[in-house]
Amino acid sequence: MLYDVIIIGAGAAGLSAAIYAGRYRMKILVLGKDFGGAAATAGKIENYPGFSSIDGYELMNLMKKQTEELGVEFLDQEVNRIKQQNQSFEVSVNEIKYQAKTIIFALGTERRRLGLLNEKELTGRGVHYCITCDGPVYTGKTIAIVGGGDASVKGVVLAAEYGKKIFLIVRDKEIMAEPINLEQMQKLGDKVEVLLETEVKEIIGKDKLEKAILSKEYNGSKELIIDGLFIEIGALPNVELAKSLGVELDERGYIKVDNMMKTNISGVFAAGDTVNHFGRFKQIITAAALGSVAATSAYEYLKQSSLK
Amino acid sequence: MLYDVIIIGAGAAGLSAAIYAGRYRMKILVLGKDFGGAAATAGKIENYPGFSSIDGYELMNLMKKQTEELGVEFLDQEVNRIKQQNQSFEVSVNEIKYQAKTIIFALGTERRRLGLLNEKELTGRGVHYCITCDGPVYTGKTIAIVGGGDASVKGVVLAAEYGKKIFLIVRDKEIMAEPINLEQMQKLGDKVEVLLETEVKEIIGKDKLEKAILSKEYNGSKELIIDGLFIEIGALPNVELAKSLGVELDERGYIKVDNMMKTNISGVFAAGDTVNHFGRFKQIITAAALGSVAATSAYEYLKQSSLK
Repeated sequence: MLYDVIIIGAGAAGLSAAIYAGRYRMKILVLGKDFGGAAATAGKIENYPGFSSIDGYELMNLMKKQTEELGVEFLDQEVNRIKQQNQSFEVSVNEIKYQAKTIIFALGTERRRLGLLNEKELTGRGVHYCITCDGPVYTGKTIAIVGGGDASVKGVVLAAEYGKKIFLIVRDKEIMAEPINLEQMQKLGDKVEVLLETEVKEIIGKDKLEKAILSKEYNGSKELIIDGLFIEIGALPNVELAKSLGVELDERGYIKVDNMMKTNISGVFAAGDTVNHFGRFKQIITAAALGSVAATSAYEYLKQSSLK
Repeated sequence: MLYDVIIIGAGAAGLSAAIYAGRYRMKILVLGKDFGGAAATAGKIENYPGFSSIDGYELMNLMKKQTEELGVEFLDQEVNRIKQQNQSFEVSVNEIKYQAKTIIFALGTERRRLGLLNEKELTGRGVHYCITCDGPVYTGKTIAIVGGGDASVKGVVLAAEYGKKIFLIVRDKEIMAEPINLEQMQKLGDKVEVLLETEVKEIIGKDKLEKAILSKEYNGSKELIIDGLFIEIGALPNVELAKSLGVELDERGYIKVDNMMKTNISGVFAAGDTVNHFGRFKQIITAAALGSVAATSAYEYLKQSSLK
């Protein structure tokens, strides 16, 4: 099966690219094992223009519905391999191979880990990376959130809906977050304890997390007894697949694109959080816009190269 | 009254900038006499991710509601004059003067109109200015496109994906378009009829467009029965105010911005269709994204310059 475009990634950028490509009447396959990407697990979204408040997963579902009305095909599968052959690309999913004239990479980012010894083993057992997804498990419990950015502050506000006590563990001297989110956190009063200039050095627990060892004493001890630890320290772009194809990255490891989302390889485009456009500013609205640009560039490319 | 930011323009870019600036807790005034900008008059919008189908005006209203929940002030007035004074800007609306630490220009473009009597009333009701946006509505229908440039020829090719018959109405003796686009149009054969040295003199229709009256007979009549009329005679960015402040334009007359929507003047940002970002690709989703970027840059500027 030869597609006009295979979009790899089904988050805001990939879905928006699919909407635009669908309107251009391209033959499209969207491959993405994590439906909705980062947006789907972001919880309540209040800054996507057009929606005063909507759950991220629901917003992604609306975008998907929009693509389905245009006849876009979806496969919730991970891509194993991609290679270029003559004028097209071969994308492997398990043993099945799909051919496409163009590719749009929209795999977003992957949450950064603390890099602690037993972090992987305790993941899902007290250690988590998504408060929206796993917060409710800690209803009435003690929760710690690691991170000093906007996501961690939003996380505190959300976690406070469930937990009885929330610790925010910040490595730096201050928190860098949107004022509106800081205000919401401050309104929570005593329920929230902010530990500045503090790091988590160890996590202790056998089958499940029991406590964290801090770099600095809190209440006379470096041991912090907690039920859940949420790590909100940023993200790294998912670029392995693109790299394997020879796509150039920038100095921070994001896919290098021009203003029209073209990569260094003809016929290969990229969009969303995985690209270096708009610097560190990564939002659902920007991902969606970049997706629309990538689809348009893919369409123009097919027309100009008479592949369409 | 000293604002953190005055946003000039109340279309998708201006409203999105206001949402983001509102969340940054900036003191904001939005000045715009054409509420909703180009989006508000685009009719049915099917390519804004998140909404399968929504009227452009309604979408702009949703964005406005979102800004109002954040306490953003609006004035549906035209700005007469703007000048820089020391570290701030003075914006005059009639005799009233407003001061701001930063400015975001988001005045969009103005589609060049034919200047016919009921053109404005029939806009969105058979008369359109954007085939990408509104073409799909005319699937299986008869479409006429006015214009003799590249955009109109590209428009014909795009319209032919939807319409059963396409007329291209060209005022001059010949079409001035890129060969590749002309070739693509020629490949469409009988489906396309080019009427050279022909102008649309009148458009007839009560609630919706019914026919156009031509300056020259076609098939024995000056009446051309059509479902959709697309006017593709160019757009002009609204840049007079920005120019008066010394903002640099690009060679096509659009406001020159960097990737973070900064202009050449400190504290002055721009977003939306009026800027040169994303080239000729101008959509509601891209305008909204650029607005969010401009607001973020204005916020960062205030923080860095300690004006906030």
